[in-house]
Amino acid sequence: MNSAEIITVGDELLIGQTVDTNSAWMGMQLSMRGIKVNRITSISDRREEIISALDEALGRAPLVLMTGGLGPTSDDITKETLAEYFGSRLVEDREVLAEITERITRRNLEMNENNRRQAMVPEICRVLANHAGTAPGMLFEKEGRIIVSMPGVPSEMKHIMQEHVLPLVSAMAGGRTIVHRNIMTYGTFEAKLAERLEGFERELHPAVKLAYLPAHGVIKLRLTGSGDDGDELHRIVEKQVRKLYTIIPDIIYGEDEVTLEETVGKLLLSNNLTISTAESCTGGKIASLLTSVPGSSAWFRGSVVAYDNSVKTGLLGVDPETISRHGAVSEETAREMAKGILRLVKTDFAIAVTGIAGPDGGTPDKPIGMVWIAVASAKGVIAEKHRFADDRMINISRSSYTALNLLRKQIISR
Amino acid sequence: MNSAEIITVGDELLIGQTVDTNSAWMGMQLSMRGIKVNRITSISDRREEIISALDEALGRAPLVLMTGGLGPTSDDITKETLAEYFGSRLVEDREVLAEITERITRRNLEMNENNRRQAMVPEICRVLANHAGTAPGMLFEKEGRIIVSMPGVPSEMKHIMQEHVLPLVSAMAGGRTIVHRNIMTYGTFEAKLAERLEGFERELHPAVKLAYLPAHGVIKLRLTGSGDDGDELHRIVEKQVRKLYTIIPDIIYGEDEVTLEETVGKLLLSNNLTISTAESCTGGKIASLLTSVPGSSAWFRGSVVAYDNSVKTGLLGVDPETISRHGAVSEETAREMAKGILRLVKTDFAIAVTGIAGPDGGTPDKPIGMVWIAVASAKGVIAEKHRFADDRMINISRSSYTALNLLRKQIISR
Repeated sequence: MNSAEIITVGDELLIGQTVDTNSAWMGMQLSMRGIKVNRITSISDRREEIISALDEALGRAPLVLMTGGLGPTSDDITKETLAEYFGSRLVEDREVLAEITERITRRNLEMNENNRRQAMVPEICRVLANHAGTAPGMLFEKEGRIIVSMPGVPSEMKHIMQEHVLPLVSAMAGGRTIVHRNIMTYGTFEAKLAERLEGFERELHPAVKLAYLPAHGVIKLRLTGSGDDGDELHRIVEKQVRKLYTIIPDIIYGEDEVTLEETVGKLLLSNNLTISTAESCTGGKIASLLTSVPGSSAWFRGSVVAYDNSVKTGLLGVDPETISRHGAVSEETAREMAKGILRLVKTDFAIAVTGIAGPDGGTPDKPIGMVWIAVASAKGVIAEKHRFADDRMINISRSSYTALNLLRKQIISR
Repeated sequence: MNSAEIITVGDELLIGQTVDTNSAWMGMQLSMRGIKVNRITSISDRREEIISALDEALGRAPLVLMTGGLGPTSDDITKETLAEYFGSRLVEDREVLAEITERITRRNLEMNENNRRQAMVPEICRVLANHAGTAPGMLFEKEGRIIVSMPGVPSEMKHIMQEHVLPLVSAMAGGRTIVHRNIMTYGTFEAKLAERLEGFERELHPAVKLAYLPAHGVIKLRLTGSGDDGDELHRIVEKQVRKLYTIIPDIIYGEDEVTLEETVGKLLLSNNLTISTAESCTGGKIASLLTSVPGSSAWFRGSVVAYDNSVKTGLLGVDPETISRHGAVSEETAREMAKGILRLVKTDFAIAVTGIAGPDGGTPDKPIGMVWIAVASAKGVIAEKHRFADDRMINISRSSYTALNLLRKQIISR
């Protein structure tokens, strides 16, 4: 079992209303476990399409993962078609029904016919519980081949994959060992990083491959080792990882899929420190990132989103004179915002950001993408000027992550 | 010529390093011109894969659009494979070579072997000039069927589609028209909505199909009409849309791809109103959503993220007595938070949210997912209690969108 196919079902994929992100996620998960994806096929919600795509995929691979077409509405026909394909009838699954009933009643709603329909599953399948939604996953076996059908909602698909499918896949992959290590970096760009790693790449152990995976300013370096001797392979990959830490210590912030906000949260927690933010152009994004981390109430106290200058002066205590002399987007304003929130919320550290996100508001002196970031603590305030992009969403995102990275460095070097 | 298939070529698609966004874009362009996409297939950069995928696609559709595998490096083999498939040899195209030379020298670089290779095309094809990059598109005809191969870089693919392929497609499609309308809803879930639309679906005009596309609590209703008479079809679909507005007026917040935050922003702008937020469990997410809308500085003033109770009492002026008597997650606290931020930032409306996002902090009385949402204005404060999910990110997201939706209703009924 070392190859697989993916079938995504839904008219919305074919007419381009939805981009199929499920396939890439599943492909990556499978490939990390040594399973090669031969082909990804997207088809419409039609019985004949589902049957022929399934026939073809099973002719090429022993594992077929399907998503989509499991909703409660009449255009979703994957379940009925699979029941037919495997010559099975739909029966009500008591556990699924109980879980749906619980989900519905907990929300003070009443069960209806469509909810009940979601508890019907082909008698022959193994039900894969979906704790992230109402449509369960289904696993079928046919002549030594495995077919899994999952909902198309990404969070539900991921839940079922992680809970049920990936453990099975790992067990089946057997034999050859594949070792992945992800080194997370922030604060440089791909071409620059590749330059710094030229020697590293030249001397890379032949059993190990290096990939650059950039996304939203973070560049994930993925080391993939493959070989027959698992222990030996782990040693080889570990040695390469340690080497990376000596070459680019300044930009590595963590490993595996850790985010910058999680890293910052761990640092704050382990050092018993607290944080607050004062945000203008990021509009609450930094606070939102920090509070996305479970348990953040232990180290995050609060924020002021000071979009309007009246909030900068009124709440954060920025001197109106500072704004009129240097502008709302200036080093001075950023520094006063940081000191203001530190005083107001009484935390050990404070982040402040003010900039021009765009699309309007740019001037020759202060173009779109110009941002001032300040980090304050009892020891004082430091401030950095950055110039990001022409795009509003990129500017908000880069400003936020760059601020978190600056905070991270300040905590470490404290 | 009213159906097509899409083939995307590249190992990076199968191992999940790249999400295939090309297919969705092409699918939408074709569908808007009345061409139905049967199937999207993603395959690896292997000769046999390309040949078999092409054979299969041509067996089902008269038009096949391919992207990918046209780069200058050795892993890109689409062009060579197509030459072989169509029994043609590669020849140097003088115009393409001239254009590549011009592009290269303009950037002060020297032509090399890889650049020259890009000017080689199968003798039999029609070259589709690529003014956005170096690899040209190629059009082949075989037994009345058309095959187009384009680079995988989205900007280059789009350029060739717009310049060459779409005009051809429009000419070929002739007659048949397809009309899409998207109705955006919030505030219910799919099964419940399907129940309310049972009669609507039963009486749906035979030329029109209805699809439910749920994502993050928003359910997009897609009406797709197809027919020969374009004007008549637009009238038919429009009539169905108007009918939807009479059946579910309470949950429709907009059309096409509009987001709830954009709708709220438009409403605030056109009514000359301002907004602020006081956020506990949403941690700045609502502010972040609102400020993601370009031009939001016209109606968004600022926020206080009051994660710690000291910020609720100190900054927002919530009575410590209220928190000790009713708890931080209570109707009373939500109301006082909303009034507090309204007074502090002086806006026309204010949103406040306090709840238990999880994973910790739940009690039998106040379980994870319980959230109080308040909206305040000069007319007073209204508050709603909700119970969402067990998942932290879902709770933050649903609380935020539900708060925006409550605000939307308050503005409308003002």
